[in-house]
Amino acid sequence: MAGSSPEREPVAARASARRGIPPATVARLPGYLRALHALAAEGVVTTSSDELADRAGVGSAQLRKDLSWLGSYGRRGVGYDVEHLSSQVEVALGLTTQRRVVIVGIGNLGHALANYSGFADRGFGVVGLVDADPAVVGTTVAGLVVRPLDELRAIVAATDASIGLIATPAAAAQEVCDALVEAGVVGILTFAPRSLRVPPHVDVRAVDVASELQILAFHDHRRATGA
Amino acid sequence: MAGSSPEREPVAARASARRGIPPATVARLPGYLRALHALAAEGVVTTSSDELADRAGVGSAQLRKDLSWLGSYGRRGVGYDVEHLSSQVEVALGLTTQRRVVIVGIGNLGHALANYSGFADRGFGVVGLVDADPAVVGTTVAGLVVRPLDELRAIVAATDASIGLIATPAAAAQEVCDALVEAGVVGILTFAPRSLRVPPHVDVRAVDVASELQILAFHDHRRATGA
Repeated sequence: MAGSSPEREPVAARASARRGIPPATVARLPGYLRALHALAAEGVVTTSSDELADRAGVGSAQLRKDLSWLGSYGRRGVGYDVEHLSSQVEVALGLTTQRRVVIVGIGNLGHALANYSGFADRGFGVVGLVDADPAVVGTTVAGLVVRPLDELRAIVAATDASIGLIATPAAAAQEVCDALVEAGVVGILTFAPRSLRVPPHVDVRAVDVASELQILAFHDHRRATGA
Repeated sequence: MAGSSPEREPVAARASARRGIPPATVARLPGYLRALHALAAEGVVTTSSDELADRAGVGSAQLRKDLSWLGSYGRRGVGYDVEHLSSQVEVALGLTTQRRVVIVGIGNLGHALANYSGFADRGFGVVGLVDADPAVVGTTVAGLVVRPLDELRAIVAATDASIGLIATPAAAAQEVCDALVEAGVVGILTFAPRSLRVPPHVDVRAVDVASELQILAFHDHRRATGA
């Protein structure tokens, strides 16, 4: 919405967007936004690239380069205006409208995700819960009634959900993914430990907790063996 | 264990490890292992780089390059032996010994993680649950009694845990992280939406679900605005 407002999205930012912000930069923007919101909550009005980079856990040269893609360079001796920069990052990420999320798979993890309070203040609303298990369908989780998988298409249409969150076992994930895509979702965040096939217009992000642990194990192992 | 066995860790692999496997390659190894285990479960004995790459969701040139760091090149016209390659990846990641994990923060997410059945067959055992809330301490989750934060050091020492999993709110995460580091943990997987400071000998992996959604929002936004 504000994406079309010239005050919030200056010409330089639009030009950058057209050139295409690199995916690695996009992946770091949520971290900057998180740090900016924390600064704002502390009443901080302006911040330096060093402070912001430190809070976000990146180098300050990296931060300055990333923010230059948004047409944001800070001011020498003054730094970045926290509120203005927050708006710029939000506009770049498209967070000026709330995006609606449907969760499929209401087991332990789906339950936890449905109840996660951190979505709302970061631009997302959970609008639908779906499960294949008749014992789970009809129960109320986080204020929403869990509905059967064959209603997925109707739920996505009725709620205008654009993002699907897959919290099913690995064996069911591709089928659920296909159903989400067919229902019209264009972004999928999956927690199932398998890779998913989607058409080119759909984006997938994957979180595999055991894979993250295995990456940590590698470092521990290297240390232990003195490699 | 098998890490010191010459059969399972050939000279070439050890040489590669000494040269240092690039972090991006390390991050892809768990995906290859996941795909290899799925193939083995289907009774597949040998696989091509094309098939394995497809299953893992990467390009086959990328796969071959990554596996060459393990000293594994496949055989022309035969491909890779599924079982042997699985072992090589497991040795490289240090998964030949089970690693012990302590979870701090037994709210909705900590609860779901404690109950996650996917850890055990991927090399990890949850050996301790810790929470700061007196109402949660003493309850049993996934067969373990939740213990208070001030027992963390004793739990890590008694269980020889090397990895800590942080599922607390953001405000508590740095304090919990410091306590885990002090207790002797060398790897931390955090779900709290804030960056954490650790000493150089400790590795941190971060999963921030809302950040993942924000990255998906970016792509949806770009599509919607025709950028």
